[in-house]
Amino acid sequence: MNAPIDFYFDFASPYAYFASTRIDALAARHGRTVRWHPVLLAVFFKVTGGRPGPTVPLLGPYMVHDMARTARLHGIPFRMPELPPQLLLAAPRAMLWLRREHGEPMAVAFARRCLAAHHSEAIDIGKEEAVLRIGAEVGADPDALVQGMHGEAIKEALKGECDAALAKGVFGVPFVLADGEPFWGFDRFDQLEGWLRASRTAA
Amino acid sequence: MNAPIDFYFDFASPYAYFASTRIDALAARHGRTVRWHPVLLAVFFKVTGGRPGPTVPLLGPYMVHDMARTARLHGIPFRMPELPPQLLLAAPRAMLWLRREHGEPMAVAFARRCLAAHHSEAIDIGKEEAVLRIGAEVGADPDALVQGMHGEAIKEALKGECDAALAKGVFGVPFVLADGEPFWGFDRFDQLEGWLRASRTAA
Repeated sequence: MNAPIDFYFDFASPYAYFASTRIDALAARHGRTVRWHPVLLAVFFKVTGGRPGPTVPLLGPYMVHDMARTARLHGIPFRMPELPPQLLLAAPRAMLWLRREHGEPMAVAFARRCLAAHHSEAIDIGKEEAVLRIGAEVGADPDALVQGMHGEAIKEALKGECDAALAKGVFGVPFVLADGEPFWGFDRFDQLEGWLRASRTAA
Repeated sequence: MNAPIDFYFDFASPYAYFASTRIDALAARHGRTVRWHPVLLAVFFKVTGGRPGPTVPLLGPYMVHDMARTARLHGIPFRMPELPPQLLLAAPRAMLWLRREHGEPMAVAFARRCLAAHHSEAIDIGKEEAVLRIGAEVGADPDALVQGMHGEAIKEALKGECDAALAKGVFGVPFVLADGEPFWGFDRFDQLEGWLRASRTAA
């Protein structure tokens, strides 16, 4: 069974960043590849009535503590972004344009760099120039990128990613679908690995 | 370092039930004892604006699936209660009366039996007679129990448990405080165990 697995993330989520540092190697250990899907928690919240965790009383301070502890225990470089959670639109739109024009590998390399920059290097990818710089690093032409990412087709593509995710029951990030089996949260990666191991043995 | 650890649970929570089947052995492996604190999620929700997970769109069906999968992977007997999540008041009040009149061991034995009955034996501990039967099983006089658990002092004691928990930053269940370090969720028990192991080594 070698069906790709689907990985859903919001660029603004530290837990999704943690997951992004592990997902490809985890999948590869079990003969799988990964399809990366940028989504927007803000769109999911409209359906679930949820709010960004860091803004919730008591949960907020706990999450800040838990994020730092989790990063430390997993050996993942992490520096909490200074700004509160934002609606990050430039990065997912740029990623979808890169995928369309240059293919999945460049899009994923870009996503990985953006996530690391935002969550471990104090680079605010809420700023378009940071996104364009990272785009250039992975080989995109900045003029074409800036034009493409503001095009109507790409805006629609991002909405489409969010709607498609919701239609499959995705409501948070990080989220993984493996053969239809849902795993929500970086703290379900052990169960995800068990699933992939078992399905490989069964194949 | 042998300070007891504090374990917070709501009788209605399946994840808290899972935690209740593991917490004492986990603590004992590292020379710790456990103080069991019954609390009410409904009181926490007033502070956090939260809602019971099973009632949230998309999250609800996922939780039902995740609970069954988590129980299976950990080998914990589990049968989803037929009724939707309830405000369970009789069990925590009875527990607090048992603790006051008969001490912690009987109160904890009672709590453990209630949790297992509700979450694996299709016994609805929302019904007072079920709570009284379990009270009798662990050695309490039913007449004294039913009178005590409806007393004003016990109602105040339960409110006091909730307020004390909130004052320590507890906002969900299961929740563990070990030396002030907070762990929310059965899926943080690996991090909790790491913490207890490290603090033992350091001692």
